[in-house]
Amino acid sequence: MKKIHQKLILGVDIGGTYIKLGLVHPEQGILGKARIRTAAVKGKSGFVRALSEKIDELKHTTNLDYTLEGIGIGAPGISTEEGVIVQAANISFLTNVNLVKLLEREFHVPVVLAKDSSLAAIGEGAFGVAKGMKNYIVLTLGTGLGCAVVVNGEILKGASGLAGEFGHTLVRKNERLCGCGRKGCLETYVSGKGIVRTVFELLANSNKKSSLRDYSYNEITPKIIFQEAQKNDPVAKKAFRDTGKILGEKIANLFTIFDPEAVILAGGLIEAADFLLPVIVETVEKSTLYFLKDKTNVLLSALGANDAALFGAASLILKRKKEILI
Amino acid sequence: MKKIHQKLILGVDIGGTYIKLGLVHPEQGILGKARIRTAAVKGKSGFVRALSEKIDELKHTTNLDYTLEGIGIGAPGISTEEGVIVQAANISFLTNVNLVKLLEREFHVPVVLAKDSSLAAIGEGAFGVAKGMKNYIVLTLGTGLGCAVVVNGEILKGASGLAGEFGHTLVRKNERLCGCGRKGCLETYVSGKGIVRTVFELLANSNKKSSLRDYSYNEITPKIIFQEAQKNDPVAKKAFRDTGKILGEKIANLFTIFDPEAVILAGGLIEAADFLLPVIVETVEKSTLYFLKDKTNVLLSALGANDAALFGAASLILKRKKEILI
Repeated sequence: MKKIHQKLILGVDIGGTYIKLGLVHPEQGILGKARIRTAAVKGKSGFVRALSEKIDELKHTTNLDYTLEGIGIGAPGISTEEGVIVQAANISFLTNVNLVKLLEREFHVPVVLAKDSSLAAIGEGAFGVAKGMKNYIVLTLGTGLGCAVVVNGEILKGASGLAGEFGHTLVRKNERLCGCGRKGCLETYVSGKGIVRTVFELLANSNKKSSLRDYSYNEITPKIIFQEAQKNDPVAKKAFRDTGKILGEKIANLFTIFDPEAVILAGGLIEAADFLLPVIVETVEKSTLYFLKDKTNVLLSALGANDAALFGAASLILKRKKEILI
Repeated sequence: MKKIHQKLILGVDIGGTYIKLGLVHPEQGILGKARIRTAAVKGKSGFVRALSEKIDELKHTTNLDYTLEGIGIGAPGISTEEGVIVQAANISFLTNVNLVKLLEREFHVPVVLAKDSSLAAIGEGAFGVAKGMKNYIVLTLGTGLGCAVVVNGEILKGASGLAGEFGHTLVRKNERLCGCGRKGCLETYVSGKGIVRTVFELLANSNKKSSLRDYSYNEITPKIIFQEAQKNDPVAKKAFRDTGKILGEKIANLFTIFDPEAVILAGGLIEAADFLLPVIVETVEKSTLYFLKDKTNVLLSALGANDAALFGAASLILKRKKEILI
């Protein structure tokens, strides 16, 4: 059977733990996936090399005949208009690199760069549960906590492009030290790293039996906590409950300030939605101003816990194309 | 000397304590002022009567020859598109009244209605310190705490027109009961009523000598607390410090989420800015995400503590006029 030649978009979502790659077809969705361990990448040339290898690998594993139409990149941190990332907590190879220029030179296709959370919001709007919505908020619960706010169909950028740092609003004073240098940021509680910290705090403060007492801080992952919660481990379950409660209170404040059509949860942690969502919904309803109570719509991403940003990357490339053509 | 006939706009700012009236000239500012005690108004017919009397009174006190070009009204609470106020905490004569229709029928001029905090934001943008800004937030520290967020030059409305209820985001759990029925809303700390509560809590918890121990809860006002602070009363000064600290922490979150050009403080309480502002600025700087630290611009309204909304009313009427003419 002759293979049909297709034009596909490479979505790249650079996270604290993995760099996720997806070959996106605008109608058919993600046709192939790969990932790179973020910690294994050394320097910007290492990043280009790893990306190049994975693109080749994807050609083989998917057995598709395709040309890349563009590369859309989601990265944490702050970038300038030209695509230079000036802040990227924990991902050293990204700092002070003009990723757009670097990759366009290497791969000879258009490259767009956006904050990972913004891409997730664009993806949800173009292909996901936010389709048709003009006002919504996407929270990405990954290694960290990302946030993008959409107001009247546009990503909220703020005066200097730095809006949406919801993960760095303060919840508890003088407690957990955050990557940003302050103490008590929401992200230190509600994120993959946050729930690990919560487990260790619970292990320290209670005498409950728990399989989680067998793991070191470096060994334990949100996935292990999730699996133990499924086996009814009391500490694992309480960690999810505590996380959901803190997040629910803060989401209530988002509803009270923004009055969005929905707050959408994405990111790896929503694989544990069975444990997280009920307490989030309950807390949001309890904590939102009374005349907003029947409007607190908390939804899960339907694009797959980690794929919203890949779809967003595709959407950006398509839009850019459109802008160039028209 | 012959009086020049002028076209002026009546701005009406309905607050929890006073209904403030101002005759606004677009270039010359406020040419005459009056006020009505909110508690003295009985029913909607009482409101129309009081307004009518004050309009006549203003003709005498200002000795101006003018025609009203329109009436712009700022009211707390929530109104429908048609101008029916469906929620107005503490102001019973406003509830379920179509204020626009009622006043247009009575005074035969165009009437516009907006949330008081939105009017203040429009006023600051058209005539005040936010002139030229596209992204800013106005907080009105009056009897309650109002908030309006401007994003890309437009008031943030949200999906159902209910955005901006910053005063009802939660700060302390299980503490002060709020007018909205929940406990711990920001407004129960940061507002005229809030600082009175803070003084009473301080009087209860400390043994410090204070002239404020001579006032009943019903007698005491923010103005009295301000006057005592000027006389170096330790409880009054601590009440302002505590208020500024709580507000500063929450303003830091606004900077972190919205990245605005400025947060502008208006409302009666800013008469005590000497006591409030330094601690607000210090706390905001300490509590904002590091890469936003040099962007935390906290400004005081320059329109007079209580006049921002009156200017906003004028601006709305002028814009409406313009829209009709063009």
